[in-house]
Amino acid sequence: MVTTQKPKYNVIGTRPVRPDGVDKVTGRALYGADLRLPGMLFGRIKRSPHAHAIIKRIDVSKARALPGVKAIVTAADLPEAEDKVQNLGEGSANLRELSNNVLASGKVLYRGHAVAAVAAVNVHVALEALDLIEVDYEVLPAVLDPREAMLPEAPLLHEGLRTRSVAGPGDKPTNVASHTQFVFGDAEKAFADCDEIVEREFSTKMVHQGYIEPHASTAMWNSDGQITIWTSTQGPFVVRAQCAEVLRHPISKVKVVPMEIGGGFGGKIPVYLDPVASILSRMTGKPVKIQMDRTEVFEGTGPTSGTSIKLKMGATKDGKIVAAQADLAYEAGAYPGSPVAEGSLCLLAPYDIEHVKIDAYDVVVNKPKVTAYRAPGAPAAMFAGEQVVDELAERLGIDPLKFRVMNTAHEGTRGPGGIPYVRIGHEECVEAALDSAHYNAPLEGENRGRGVASGFWFNAGLRSSVTVTVQPDGTVSLIEGSTDIGGTRASLAMQLAETLGVAFEDVKPTVVDTDSVGYNDVTGGSRVTYGSGMAVHEAGLVLQREMVQRLARPWQCAPEDIECQDGRFRTKDGAKDASFKDAAKLVVSRGPGVTASASVHAGGFGAGAFATHIVDVEVDPETGKVTILRYTAVQDAGTAIHPSYVEGQMQGGVVQGIGWALNEEYFYDDQGRMANSSFLDYRMPTTLDVPMIDTIIVEVPSPNHPFGVRGVGEVPIVPPLAAIANAVYRATGVRQTQLPMSPRRILETTLGIA
Amino acid sequence: MVTTQKPKYNVIGTRPVRPDGVDKVTGRALYGADLRLPGMLFGRIKRSPHAHAIIKRIDVSKARALPGVKAIVTAADLPEAEDKVQNLGEGSANLRELSNNVLASGKVLYRGHAVAAVAAVNVHVALEALDLIEVDYEVLPAVLDPREAMLPEAPLLHEGLRTRSVAGPGDKPTNVASHTQFVFGDAEKAFADCDEIVEREFSTKMVHQGYIEPHASTAMWNSDGQITIWTSTQGPFVVRAQCAEVLRHPISKVKVVPMEIGGGFGGKIPVYLDPVASILSRMTGKPVKIQMDRTEVFEGTGPTSGTSIKLKMGATKDGKIVAAQADLAYEAGAYPGSPVAEGSLCLLAPYDIEHVKIDAYDVVVNKPKVTAYRAPGAPAAMFAGEQVVDELAERLGIDPLKFRVMNTAHEGTRGPGGIPYVRIGHEECVEAALDSAHYNAPLEGENRGRGVASGFWFNAGLRSSVTVTVQPDGTVSLIEGSTDIGGTRASLAMQLAETLGVAFEDVKPTVVDTDSVGYNDVTGGSRVTYGSGMAVHEAGLVLQREMVQRLARPWQCAPEDIECQDGRFRTKDGAKDASFKDAAKLVVSRGPGVTASASVHAGGFGAGAFATHIVDVEVDPETGKVTILRYTAVQDAGTAIHPSYVEGQMQGGVVQGIGWALNEEYFYDDQGRMANSSFLDYRMPTTLDVPMIDTIIVEVPSPNHPFGVRGVGEVPIVPPLAAIANAVYRATGVRQTQLPMSPRRILETTLGIA
Repeated sequence: MVTTQKPKYNVIGTRPVRPDGVDKVTGRALYGADLRLPGMLFGRIKRSPHAHAIIKRIDVSKARALPGVKAIVTAADLPEAEDKVQNLGEGSANLRELSNNVLASGKVLYRGHAVAAVAAVNVHVALEALDLIEVDYEVLPAVLDPREAMLPEAPLLHEGLRTRSVAGPGDKPTNVASHTQFVFGDAEKAFADCDEIVEREFSTKMVHQGYIEPHASTAMWNSDGQITIWTSTQGPFVVRAQCAEVLRHPISKVKVVPMEIGGGFGGKIPVYLDPVASILSRMTGKPVKIQMDRTEVFEGTGPTSGTSIKLKMGATKDGKIVAAQADLAYEAGAYPGSPVAEGSLCLLAPYDIEHVKIDAYDVVVNKPKVTAYRAPGAPAAMFAGEQVVDELAERLGIDPLKFRVMNTAHEGTRGPGGIPYVRIGHEECVEAALDSAHYNAPLEGENRGRGVASGFWFNAGLRSSVTVTVQPDGTVSLIEGSTDIGGTRASLAMQLAETLGVAFEDVKPTVVDTDSVGYNDVTGGSRVTYGSGMAVHEAGLVLQREMVQRLARPWQCAPEDIECQDGRFRTKDGAKDASFKDAAKLVVSRGPGVTASASVHAGGFGAGAFATHIVDVEVDPETGKVTILRYTAVQDAGTAIHPSYVEGQMQGGVVQGIGWALNEEYFYDDQGRMANSSFLDYRMPTTLDVPMIDTIIVEVPSPNHPFGVRGVGEVPIVPPLAAIANAVYRATGVRQTQLPMSPRRILETTLGIA
Repeated sequence: MVTTQKPKYNVIGTRPVRPDGVDKVTGRALYGADLRLPGMLFGRIKRSPHAHAIIKRIDVSKARALPGVKAIVTAADLPEAEDKVQNLGEGSANLRELSNNVLASGKVLYRGHAVAAVAAVNVHVALEALDLIEVDYEVLPAVLDPREAMLPEAPLLHEGLRTRSVAGPGDKPTNVASHTQFVFGDAEKAFADCDEIVEREFSTKMVHQGYIEPHASTAMWNSDGQITIWTSTQGPFVVRAQCAEVLRHPISKVKVVPMEIGGGFGGKIPVYLDPVASILSRMTGKPVKIQMDRTEVFEGTGPTSGTSIKLKMGATKDGKIVAAQADLAYEAGAYPGSPVAEGSLCLLAPYDIEHVKIDAYDVVVNKPKVTAYRAPGAPAAMFAGEQVVDELAERLGIDPLKFRVMNTAHEGTRGPGGIPYVRIGHEECVEAALDSAHYNAPLEGENRGRGVASGFWFNAGLRSSVTVTVQPDGTVSLIEGSTDIGGTRASLAMQLAETLGVAFEDVKPTVVDTDSVGYNDVTGGSRVTYGSGMAVHEAGLVLQREMVQRLARPWQCAPEDIECQDGRFRTKDGAKDASFKDAAKLVVSRGPGVTASASVHAGGFGAGAFATHIVDVEVDPETGKVTILRYTAVQDAGTAIHPSYVEGQMQGGVVQGIGWALNEEYFYDDQGRMANSSFLDYRMPTTLDVPMIDTIIVEVPSPNHPFGVRGVGEVPIVPPLAAIANAVYRATGVRQTQLPMSPRRILETTLGIA
């Protein structure tokens, strides 16, 4: 762990056992599918077999006649949705598109698109009923590749779609939902002064988050109009907002109870099942549970975009990158909304480059609507950017890490979108990588190579609310509203304990439903430990002030005579002195309870974080298989609240990056049908595929956060794609411009037959 | 409704539908026994067949060998309890006695006393196992009457018990747990100046609250030491505190989830099943549910005391009561703690009497430990007091209501315990009764009589905490911690709506568990609408202040330039103006959420309330049956937040009073065995036994509460016993000094054979 400067903390930086640990390892924790309610019905979704088709007719009469079937729903049963863009907690969404993605209306736009749903007495009857629902389709040609979809002759997904750009909406129907430009300086002119220019094209395939737990939602629409939804989600408040809009129901009559979540990585933010289960419940007067199987998760939920990126970068012979020009086209899936803007902004984020021009295209294709996946948009962008940087360094004969130090962004450098960086830690990460045992160890043997790459992620701030209450034994309950994916019960409890000067074990965190705590944005954007941490800190300070007020009575002095330092309360004359816990017992046993709430807006973006990864690979020249020999991830955590969880995030991000780099892809046939929609065929890494991932935590405290926290969950997935590609290049001498670097592709490229 | 003065309210005083109404009438609400958890075991309690016995041996070996039995617990499995008195939220309790009442240790002190418990795979196996538990008893003589128990030769329940009194502890073992005196002036001397003196002895029998829902508790003791208890209780925080003490477990590791409650009336405050279920859960690693049957409720939970009261009162011939002397002995049941002090303080509360001397004795007997029952101690005291007052009025030839007006207490009069009354409404109640249609209607026919009586109850204040959050649609969620017995979700939501200037429907109240809200004392003492109402009002004011801060940004002014009046926000220059709801939408859609918490201590006693009742009866001279012909209850509610619920409380209290007066009693055989422990034999009134109870709400606002609220739940049970006795006297010419006034007793007294 590399720490630049840090106050002395008592709780922060330790590694206590998570409060939810025992429940999770003993199987007692309740996940989305674990809920059973009296009289509950079971729902299933009928999905499109076609990638693109007009729905001519849906006949549910045979299905409805099946004994045990209680209700059937199609898009006709959803309220008319407004064609309006609104921020529902995960960025802007068009309400009509949101509704149409929940149940297709008029057209199906991808294979797996939901067209109807059944509620029945059990899942077997529900499945049988799905087969009895007759849908007449008029099949249309489908388009699956973003560059093809941009062509004028491409089949159109939405007749009404016009390209949004700074010039205003386009005048022709198109699949290009938006065109965004980022221009600084004059890149074209600057290339003329460059000694070395590298220009390449890259492409990556659609990949899925691959969370273990499929989506599951249970809804109860009570006869008084109150809807309760128990669901596996990263954002109970997002589910509330989206259901309220799709169902056109008052938001305050929707209560969302977040169950434990078996992974999300961004994929469990939008609603899929929740509005459908709600309407089936309204129709039947019973609670309705719907679960997906794995194929539905692949085909019916949001993966991340396949991409096509053209990138040109130029540097002077003294090692300075002076110009970059890029063209990025990202698949949005069936409805607009790819993370191409985020990718564009991350692409060059680690570097101080004067002249930049980026064109970014959001393109609809006949695939599932993409959603967030861990640092959305950045890994694919960095797969391009960090290979081109690597190639520049090589051509200039400069060590790739030293080349990055020479060009690093730092405090004051123009950051993504033009706003100067506050204190950041990219340089410290690269230096730590240079100093690492891994980078200084020789790599011997045939067909082996070492690659490095850096990565950036913004990290979000957004809105968080918590309520804290002093208990009679002087402990503190912490009520929060953020789904705990990565150990945030612990990381928030630790920050509250640090603020109050109590032990970690004296804070008891609980994640509650949307009625029982103030507003909380989604668990995403690596924002909870950061943004909710600010709320926890603020609530702790309010609690201390309230305690001072309450202590004045038993201590027989004025509140002004009491001060709170290092978690202790003292009268200024030194006569009285008590720890928080003792003071709390004194106050709570006599007076009313002491409760404090805090709601904060931690800003749109939090504290940006960087990572630099080193990887050694061996490429089997006969099979093309790439083996990861050694991997070291260096990352600026700002302050590592719970270092084990930071390390866990780093290791998890790397492993997902390895899968994305080497094996994962949505494999489509020419009919737009995914051919590998099971975990057997969609090849995610297992423990046998990866070595122990070594971690080096760098701590350059964020100036925006009381404890210096930066988000840590997303940036570790950003460098691996490029780092591995760079390593494969060193092992084989061939640049890899397409993902995944599967054995077949490695063979084809190294044998020159690709 | 008689209202003396009241501000104009928008929400208060209306009669909206309760938020929990639909769930309750559709059967969807979950009560104590409705919980089902995966792997749940079922517990049952083995109880003593003897009223008083030494436990010589408990052999559980045969029971343990029964297939399906998972655990057996006896007092030996409970931690050693401290012999220490502590306030656990329902007044002081001796921890050892609390523990011994949960599972008997050494001796059983009443029939039905719990001695062991079994957890098994189902309730049938559990019941079979109970029969296989062998307990050897050495039976001891029992004492069942409080006056007999006070005699030196009486069998002793507790060798260590000494009488507590102002003189210090007594020196001899005794059944008299305490002797309290209340002395003002010189009663003995004052009697010499009286023109009329009435002296009588009264007695009442032990009666039960008779709630519909038997006790039910489910506990899960997790392997990390966290205990969760789902239970039917009036006081989740009391259950938490008592379980923590009985189990000697950190209070912050006990979470109590209050289920909906099917009646309590004071009887669902102490723990019976909760610690037992917890230990069985710890032993088995599974959740354990225990339910009582009706016999267990009668024999194993706390009814209210049987009493013996001697009362002497004197008045001058001009109608002034000048002296009173009383001696009250109340059964505590098996452990100290009868409400004799409360009864003593209520006895003369409606009147301004200069000279008073009261001796109050708390006496243990071999019956279940009594607990609170609606205005604990007061009905029996008033049965004595209001008959003697009636007799004095009769002897003086003064109308009984006018006599009460002549002697009424009012603001400034010395109240119970000597503290002068604030503004009270007894006189207004009596005047309203005098003005009532009922009192002014003639009562014709043979064997009929009209009786009146007043009553008093303190009402509690105590501690309440709430948290309120503004939702995106401008509605407000209200998180509270008080079990809703009598409509307090509605009465608190109404007060919040009034405070904020929003509609009742725009406030959504939720009762949450003990971890999820600040400290709340028990739902009892008629305190929730009063005390939690104060918390709600305070939280509303904090929310308004916070809204002003937040509004400053979109309104582009300083917070100081915004004022809040009548629920509207306005800039002082009049340029901006918004309702709470519109302002809330504006603020929440842009900024962080807005949440406010308030914790208040509303004082030990709240705002005392009075009631005056009028009843017409007909007594069948052949059978002795008393028929209630007409009943009017007049009561000072301070301010009736929801008049329908006030009326409901008044009617419910009267009906319970009618049952107590005419039929209900614990009927014991000479072995101390209750002979009528079922609803078939324990005769509670049905709808066929009572007429419509007419109500007149008087509103003399409490000066202690922002909306003038006084508690309303308890005082309506205070006057009926005396009012009916006075009516029976008018119908028969015979004073009734013993309860219940069953047909047999009426016949015996009217025929002179009692």
